[in-house]
Amino acid sequence: MKIALAQLNYHIGNFDSNVNKILHSIRQAKDQGADLVVFAELAISGYPPRDFLEFTDFVDQCQVALKKITPVCNGIGVIVGLPTYNHAPKGKPLFNSAAFLAEGRLQQLVHKTLLPNYDIFDEYRYFEPNRNFEILNYQGKRIALTICEDLWNVHDNPLYITNPMEELKILRPDMIINIAASPFNYAQASERKAVLQKNAIKYQIPLVYVNHVGAQTELLFDGGSLVLDGKGSPVHELRYFEEDFRVVDMDHLDANSPMLQPVQVNEIALIHDALVMGIRNYFGKLGFRQAIVGLSGGIDSAVTSVLAAEALGAENVYNVLLPSRYSTGHSVDDAKKLVLNLGMPYDTIPIENGFNAMEETLAPFFKNLPSDVTEENLQARVRGVILMALSNKFGYILLNTSNKSEAAVGYGTLYGDMNGGLSVIGDVYKTKVFQLARYINRNKEIIPENIISKPPSAELRHDQKDSDSLPEYDVLDEILYQYIEERRGPKQIVDMGFSRELVSRILKLVNMNEYKRYQTPPILRVTGKAFGMGRRMPIVARYLS
Amino acid sequence: MKIALAQLNYHIGNFDSNVNKILHSIRQAKDQGADLVVFAELAISGYPPRDFLEFTDFVDQCQVALKKITPVCNGIGVIVGLPTYNHAPKGKPLFNSAAFLAEGRLQQLVHKTLLPNYDIFDEYRYFEPNRNFEILNYQGKRIALTICEDLWNVHDNPLYITNPMEELKILRPDMIINIAASPFNYAQASERKAVLQKNAIKYQIPLVYVNHVGAQTELLFDGGSLVLDGKGSPVHELRYFEEDFRVVDMDHLDANSPMLQPVQVNEIALIHDALVMGIRNYFGKLGFRQAIVGLSGGIDSAVTSVLAAEALGAENVYNVLLPSRYSTGHSVDDAKKLVLNLGMPYDTIPIENGFNAMEETLAPFFKNLPSDVTEENLQARVRGVILMALSNKFGYILLNTSNKSEAAVGYGTLYGDMNGGLSVIGDVYKTKVFQLARYINRNKEIIPENIISKPPSAELRHDQKDSDSLPEYDVLDEILYQYIEERRGPKQIVDMGFSRELVSRILKLVNMNEYKRYQTPPILRVTGKAFGMGRRMPIVARYLS
Repeated sequence: MKIALAQLNYHIGNFDSNVNKILHSIRQAKDQGADLVVFAELAISGYPPRDFLEFTDFVDQCQVALKKITPVCNGIGVIVGLPTYNHAPKGKPLFNSAAFLAEGRLQQLVHKTLLPNYDIFDEYRYFEPNRNFEILNYQGKRIALTICEDLWNVHDNPLYITNPMEELKILRPDMIINIAASPFNYAQASERKAVLQKNAIKYQIPLVYVNHVGAQTELLFDGGSLVLDGKGSPVHELRYFEEDFRVVDMDHLDANSPMLQPVQVNEIALIHDALVMGIRNYFGKLGFRQAIVGLSGGIDSAVTSVLAAEALGAENVYNVLLPSRYSTGHSVDDAKKLVLNLGMPYDTIPIENGFNAMEETLAPFFKNLPSDVTEENLQARVRGVILMALSNKFGYILLNTSNKSEAAVGYGTLYGDMNGGLSVIGDVYKTKVFQLARYINRNKEIIPENIISKPPSAELRHDQKDSDSLPEYDVLDEILYQYIEERRGPKQIVDMGFSRELVSRILKLVNMNEYKRYQTPPILRVTGKAFGMGRRMPIVARYLS
Repeated sequence: MKIALAQLNYHIGNFDSNVNKILHSIRQAKDQGADLVVFAELAISGYPPRDFLEFTDFVDQCQVALKKITPVCNGIGVIVGLPTYNHAPKGKPLFNSAAFLAEGRLQQLVHKTLLPNYDIFDEYRYFEPNRNFEILNYQGKRIALTICEDLWNVHDNPLYITNPMEELKILRPDMIINIAASPFNYAQASERKAVLQKNAIKYQIPLVYVNHVGAQTELLFDGGSLVLDGKGSPVHELRYFEEDFRVVDMDHLDANSPMLQPVQVNEIALIHDALVMGIRNYFGKLGFRQAIVGLSGGIDSAVTSVLAAEALGAENVYNVLLPSRYSTGHSVDDAKKLVLNLGMPYDTIPIENGFNAMEETLAPFFKNLPSDVTEENLQARVRGVILMALSNKFGYILLNTSNKSEAAVGYGTLYGDMNGGLSVIGDVYKTKVFQLARYINRNKEIIPENIISKPPSAELRHDQKDSDSLPEYDVLDEILYQYIEERRGPKQIVDMGFSRELVSRILKLVNMNEYKRYQTPPILRVTGKAFGMGRRMPIVARYLS
């Protein structure tokens, strides 16, 4: 049996586009003599459709889309994901289903059993879990058709009580097909492959895995669809961060396998590629072409600007230098050198006029109080106003340049430098931003060396350095990582060798600044625990704060 | 048996405060001769603890808190909610539990069976559902101890497959105790009572219901704890929007019941009380005393300011009038009249200087393009900068004044009038804001009549009216309600008698402006579907947009 893996970039709710992509791949599969073509989980709606699933009209449109696909499924079988109705008198109203289409009609619906409901996942919000296990019979093959998480209950400490493959095993399948919507995070890229291998090895049958590719707001789907043989060896692997399509002869897995392309394992390279895709798809799917970036001469805005240039083309990234009385000469020079290196458009708009006017306006009400963080925020906000005005006037999307370390400790100004339609590096700790900059410069100097090597500063007062109020970033980032990603408590982190006072201060900063992050733009997610939909915290609380 | 109902306002993660409140109520219950005192669901942690539940340290501290309470439970029984560990080898790591304490030790743990995972609820994210049904035996009574949602599966189209009370019924209970964390929404206030009555009637036993009271960021818990007799008649009802405590003799429910206070059923009064509590608790629990409000002379900021004055005291609400060249004389006069009516502090800070400076700064880059929405946003943002500077300098929390209608259609400026630490009326449609204003004026004119009766305008250009770009609010709000609260699709709404073109335009505005609402402050929730944690939408999508 020849199976086509169709790894596509869907657009949530854009049924016309999704159906057209699916129809195109079905034609392609037929042309290449495939017996079966496999699409990803919830391909028809795009993933994640989130609360659109609560709209009957939306779910109805998914069924309409399926009916457009069904008639062409002649001479070929098609497996495609979509939400379907649960007609039982009890339980949640929907299933997360895989439709099997053949001979011009819907042959079978298989529903997802294990519904992830952690981190960024909310599937139990919408879907009833499957409880009936059936095999899919097609052209003499007995296929265990599963959906994403269904294969993931293989840990020592399993999250779910049931294990779908243990049920399906009884029905003696010849192969496993898994349709997935498994978002990228750099730490999990290898785990996913390990989980799939565990399954192939445990059940001793080949496995076909088809994933989404492309960005859906903050979620980045990296593709990497796979075929494993019955010994768990990956014999086909589709591209990462790009659409891909391949027909695989399942009866000759060993014989006809080409040498596998070595997978990119450099985590910084992965993060880089993921972020570029994230920017490109955010703009493309929203129908925007051009970005605006406030370029400070620091490393965060430099990296953001270069990633945007890679995603959109250098000519589509408008850089604005917004110097103040506290900006150093080298910052302006460094920023200019960067834009010239890539040939990006830029302007210099000093904020002095606006800042002075605001200070004058406020002076009678500030009652001669000394300058403090208010005046620092004021500069950041005047910059924010200028960038947003240009964004409004010309239709740019403002890219936010905050990194994860500063987002964590609240070292940013709400309605100032926290502005933006999309946060590019908000899930990248400062220490990793430096690595990204080095990676960007791997072949030649794009980001001026001075931007990378000078001590980080917000330049909101004279001689300010980040290290005035924060520990060195390698220390800060490690504490943040332990607290945010690993969810370790203060005692555990202190036991790792950090001072009690420092740990207490950092964790307090993180928790106190929930209110700022609540109003942050969506953050491209590259770790296992990003700020945003996957990390849900109360604002009003008193825990470690 | 005498049961004390302790309806308290907890603080998430503030274990010292929560434990002290609980200990105080136990003493009070003992003093009043109670046999048993009942606290709410997850009382020890506060509700909802959200992802703090993923921190072992947090859950450990809940167990430590329980150990502080246990020794005093001598001569009295105590039922109190907290998260506990699931020690089984499979499944989610926690239970949502009710601890029964007596004779100085933990006697029994009962776990929640039905875990709400819709709207604002995420309980399946953390908790394993209970599968073992046991009765609680105490002083000769057989008590069916249930947790909130456990009693809610009584609809014709039930959301869950199991029904805990059907399991517990077999064990012949004498009464039902339900500990709850049931947030307020004005449409649901009567439904909750109906659900409890259905249970008492169906199982023909009395029911004790203890709810949370107080605000937790956006969630407003209204209290209203209840005792129903075995015929389903409410014989005791605790206060709404306030802490309360009452000892009830369950053996003489009919005899000793006082006449029930008539419950406030006016929905506008309920919304009013809920919002006042929401503001008060937001400030109180964060340790802030004073609010700042940008007062435009329009109805939204007027209502917001008055609600804040009721919550915090008029002297703690600093009003700033920020007139521009487009502000009408009556707006400034109306705003001044309002602050004088309540004796609130205020200042007038014209934005002309700041606005001019920003326009001058931008002029060389705007290339003589005509004035458009950019300049309107610019005014809103200059106001936002001034308000935030005052907030930073003096430690005010800025209150956001957007209503639900404008939040829905994106009729607000990001980083401008959408600024604030808390959105007070962001879940109140404009038509209901007018009703709130009338309600505020029910005894005397607090909000000047002209603010209520003049046509709404953003005053961002000459002679602007909201109705220039939006339909009349009664039409707009009805379409929004049908789409947002009722989740009706375009065809259904058109069938209700609205024009296809209008429905399509409004729904498109709602969906296109998801990106703005993503960055909105937390919104006090008073309806069944508020923007925020209970409504989760993709930003990048193309559905009805």
